[in-house]
Amino acid sequence: MEETLFTVNNVWMMICTALVFLMHLGFSLLEIGLTRQKNTINILFKNVFIICIGLVLYALVGFNLMYPGSFIAGIIPDYFVDLFGLSMPENGLTAGYADGGYTYWTDFLFQGMFAATAATIVSGAVAERIKLGAFMIFTIIYVGLVYPIVGSWKWGAGWLDSLGFYDFAGSTLVHSVGGWAALVAVWLLGARIGKFKKDGSVGAIPGHNMPFATAGVFILWLGWFGFNGGSVLSAAPGATSLVLVTTCIAAASGGLGAFLVSLFKYKQYDLSMFLNGVLGGLVGITAGADLMSVTDAILIGFIAGALIVLGVALIDKLKLDDPVGAIAVHLICGIWGTLAVGIFGDLAGWAQLGYQAVGIFAIGATCLISAYAIIKTLKSTVGIRVSKEEEQEGLDIHEHGMDAYPDFRLNQH
Amino acid sequence: MEETLFTVNNVWMMICTALVFLMHLGFSLLEIGLTRQKNTINILFKNVFIICIGLVLYALVGFNLMYPGSFIAGIIPDYFVDLFGLSMPENGLTAGYADGGYTYWTDFLFQGMFAATAATIVSGAVAERIKLGAFMIFTIIYVGLVYPIVGSWKWGAGWLDSLGFYDFAGSTLVHSVGGWAALVAVWLLGARIGKFKKDGSVGAIPGHNMPFATAGVFILWLGWFGFNGGSVLSAAPGATSLVLVTTCIAAASGGLGAFLVSLFKYKQYDLSMFLNGVLGGLVGITAGADLMSVTDAILIGFIAGALIVLGVALIDKLKLDDPVGAIAVHLICGIWGTLAVGIFGDLAGWAQLGYQAVGIFAIGATCLISAYAIIKTLKSTVGIRVSKEEEQEGLDIHEHGMDAYPDFRLNQH
Amino acid sequence: MEETLFTVNNVWMMICTALVFLMHLGFSLLEIGLTRQKNTINILFKNVFIICIGLVLYALVGFNLMYPGSFIAGIIPDYFVDLFGLSMPENGLTAGYADGGYTYWTDFLFQGMFAATAATIVSGAVAERIKLGAFMIFTIIYVGLVYPIVGSWKWGAGWLDSLGFYDFAGSTLVHSVGGWAALVAVWLLGARIGKFKKDGSVGAIPGHNMPFATAGVFILWLGWFGFNGGSVLSAAPGATSLVLVTTCIAAASGGLGAFLVSLFKYKQYDLSMFLNGVLGGLVGITAGADLMSVTDAILIGFIAGALIVLGVALIDKLKLDDPVGAIAVHLICGIWGTLAVGIFGDLAGWAQLGYQAVGIFAIGATCLISAYAIIKTLKSTVGIRVSKEEEQEGLDIHEHGMDAYPDFRLNQH
Repeated sequence: MEETLFTVNNVWMMICTALVFLMHLGFSLLEIGLTRQKNTINILFKNVFIICIGLVLYALVGFNLMYPGSFIAGIIPDYFVDLFGLSMPENGLTAGYADGGYTYWTDFLFQGMFAATAATIVSGAVAERIKLGAFMIFTIIYVGLVYPIVGSWKWGAGWLDSLGFYDFAGSTLVHSVGGWAALVAVWLLGARIGKFKKDGSVGAIPGHNMPFATAGVFILWLGWFGFNGGSVLSAAPGATSLVLVTTCIAAASGGLGAFLVSLFKYKQYDLSMFLNGVLGGLVGITAGADLMSVTDAILIGFIAGALIVLGVALIDKLKLDDPVGAIAVHLICGIWGTLAVGIFGDLAGWAQLGYQAVGIFAIGATCLISAYAIIKTLKSTVGIRVSKEEEQEGLDIHEHGMDAYPDFRLNQH
Repeated sequence: MEETLFTVNNVWMMICTALVFLMHLGFSLLEIGLTRQKNTINILFKNVFIICIGLVLYALVGFNLMYPGSFIAGIIPDYFVDLFGLSMPENGLTAGYADGGYTYWTDFLFQGMFAATAATIVSGAVAERIKLGAFMIFTIIYVGLVYPIVGSWKWGAGWLDSLGFYDFAGSTLVHSVGGWAALVAVWLLGARIGKFKKDGSVGAIPGHNMPFATAGVFILWLGWFGFNGGSVLSAAPGATSLVLVTTCIAAASGGLGAFLVSLFKYKQYDLSMFLNGVLGGLVGITAGADLMSVTDAILIGFIAGALIVLGVALIDKLKLDDPVGAIAVHLICGIWGTLAVGIFGDLAGWAQLGYQAVGIFAIGATCLISAYAIIKTLKSTVGIRVSKEEEQEGLDIHEHGMDAYPDFRLNQH
Repeated sequence: MEETLFTVNNVWMMICTALVFLMHLGFSLLEIGLTRQKNTINILFKNVFIICIGLVLYALVGFNLMYPGSFIAGIIPDYFVDLFGLSMPENGLTAGYADGGYTYWTDFLFQGMFAATAATIVSGAVAERIKLGAFMIFTIIYVGLVYPIVGSWKWGAGWLDSLGFYDFAGSTLVHSVGGWAALVAVWLLGARIGKFKKDGSVGAIPGHNMPFATAGVFILWLGWFGFNGGSVLSAAPGATSLVLVTTCIAAASGGLGAFLVSLFKYKQYDLSMFLNGVLGGLVGITAGADLMSVTDAILIGFIAGALIVLGVALIDKLKLDDPVGAIAVHLICGIWGTLAVGIFGDLAGWAQLGYQAVGIFAIGATCLISAYAIIKTLKSTVGIRVSKEEEQEGLDIHEHGMDAYPDFRLNQH
């Protein structure tokens, strides 16, 4: 490959890396915006921790786990070979590496930014009641081991890839991986005090800062330019520009879908639903962003948006307490987007739909079991839930000795 | 054109697209920052709606309207031909399209992000009192029809383009198009309760969150790297880098102009004026960002900044209530920037000044009439203004059943 | 050089320029987040002023000062030659300029964004008590003269460059230059009322908005992709991608270092320390980001993070009041990062360590003396500190007649 084209590709991938990095700010703002002020420091702390430990772990372990030089039967990567330390291939800085799409370093950093995302998804769902230490241990194991192992099945050219399973940028491999863990964690943690009342009604616990939540969604949408655009793994003009179009159209359509369905269902212009609808559309298009037409993207996004409204209601009905709607956004729309590859676009067909279902099932089962094993172990050892007193007074003051907004007069609830 | 250069151009244009997208976050933060907390959800909802509906509409209608295959006498694009659905030209993904500047998809997305901007400008001016439904209908018609039709006169190679009218990135075609509608809407809506008192004095209604307003302006400035930088329509090094320099210098100089004039006039270091001065400088340079020297940019920006201070005072004197200063920023500085093309830089001259005036007048008249027709019709049918009670208690609680900051104790006013 | 490669390089540098620009938003949010709400407008005003005046001054004076056509003995650039106005070299827009790395305009804008940073660093340290006018005069002189003159010693191919001093992206040339001035300013200003009590204890003055502080750090980290990535001065794939990796790894490791050391020392999960640790890691890697391995970056970052915790304690012990920790971040970690070039990575060795020490000493002495001369002169003429009443009631209401959050009920302290 020509040196200049390699340089262009690498520039695009570095920019996409930066945009995926910025998603961690987006998640931070979304999560604090949709929860109470008394837990703000705690959520911010977790999010800063995730990106920091995520990158360092990915350098020490994850990258070699996920894209291994060798496999044991294509299922468990041979991670005893390259563990601890990055080993650059000889052509790591030339156009010979990764078909001239980027350098070894860009590859590592782009993938590292992705890895940390899975833990961030969980962070929102368990907010306002999880012990910080337990969450940090969970993050280390889940981001350090589970994410790269299941990721290797597809993106590391493992058995799901051989089968024909398709997941362009990670509706399943990133979003559902986070979503399944969120489901398990929310179930094992139990609901926040006051969420489900004795009379069976659901107590609304409104988020404390809707501008932050909105800014978070805009920043996440921007980040998705890199998340999906970078998953082309080069700057190929046709593919990258199509991906940006389907991504943005699905986001827009997802927002409109959630807005209209919630208006119809609840007779209210619900900003939270609108915002989560945008995210649902983004997660939904992610598995097949490179395969869809504009019309497909409109439909996939719109259905994702509708699923958000129905999903949030369903999760409430199941007495699961997900403060930010992470399960609806990342798990439900992640599954929807993965299935959509078999329904719409270039690969549509019954066979493909079957491969997609196999992938969803295999990765879902693995994530459920792993997450359960990790979180259950934590629960019966160090404990995963803060004390009742701490939950009521806020994690900020108890775990961090700080108040996020000390100059403002606050309503405690 | 060489494939690699085409790839570079397309990368640059995709990045610029992302930056223009981010302007919608900038506008959101600016608008909520400069208004009261009780209307925050409403403004955020409008801004999320605008980008979502804007993109979907632009896919369904706008793009083909604005860059039509054929014209009826070069004035009204033949929009019955390609309506509903994007029809990609055969060379849409190769360097044959758009002189190798970008792909068809990038073209669509970049222009789509622009389109939504016009409605956003209006959003700020009508804040705190417009009915959400009326605003949404207005947005759909104005972004879906008026913006692309007048845009086609210049950027669709229509009659203003043939005449010699110059508007590099849209001082008139985007900013004034929004600004004229803002003027009409503000006039038909009337002032917010408490803005103009019976004794003739002006009641200040301070914005509720100046950090958001400031962050909004920084993000808008960043977005302008893409707005103007992308309007080169390729990554041509000389042109793009000059455009970024004139853009940034005009922004800086606009801020300083507004700061100094307001210090001189009001003896105060006024942050709102400083911020709007930056925006005024940005709008002012937009029509001729590719034609100016650094010295020209300093002068254009400085004058734009001064016009902000004088314009805001004038609009107050006319008893027009524009909560965020959108008319001064987008209309007055949009006109100034368009005229500046005839006064400074490579095209300066009496003839050019005449073409610029024709463009301003033609587009101004069309926008005024269209906006008046749409908003007046809405006013006499569904109504455009919320009830007195709703205005006083806030649109958030009435239209959205939500509070933007439920954990904080608030002053109602 | 090939035209297309030149175009790619220029695209990368323009993006980096945009990212460095955005750091000014990052600094703004960090500084207001870590200080009290009553001084928010003042801090925002200063930061908007800095980028505006910084760019205009850099166009009028600084750029020619820093990268002069000729030198007087290689020490003082011959700034009487090209003063006032940019003089573009003949090859300014072709691949002949700057080895095809970028155009003259991009060069100017990238460097201009850097220049303003030095003053921003000072802004945080002197927050909540400095007179706005005095700060503005200081900024004009320091950014307009001191920064470009010492910068020219290395980046203008001056005597430190000839000596062998290495500072890739400005641990010393940008961060310490700001840090030394912060040190002098903090000393001459004295502590805020209530910071150091009569009994010798330190009174904590908590920041008023930790989400803003956190968002600021994320945005600064993003900005560092451009700050360090752009300092390659081209898009060379190997160098740029390595630089992004070392930068991000050092940031992550710096955060973890500060988190762990502060947990060990104070038994608390301290978000402020975590955030400043990230910044310390970023400043620490800046001098040698292109020379380090991943392991080096982890170590450099971790030590920088530890230095943040120790540095903040030391500065408190010295009765210096630095509200945002700017001296620890920019001066201490700037020195550390500059020394680290002699300890880790490709240039490590005693000789290099010596050159680094000479650079630190020479620039430190010059900055200390210049900053002292400027600020002392201001102190004994216009005065540098606001009145006791103004400090207690807040600079916002006194200097700006505005309140940053008028709709919220506030605790005054």
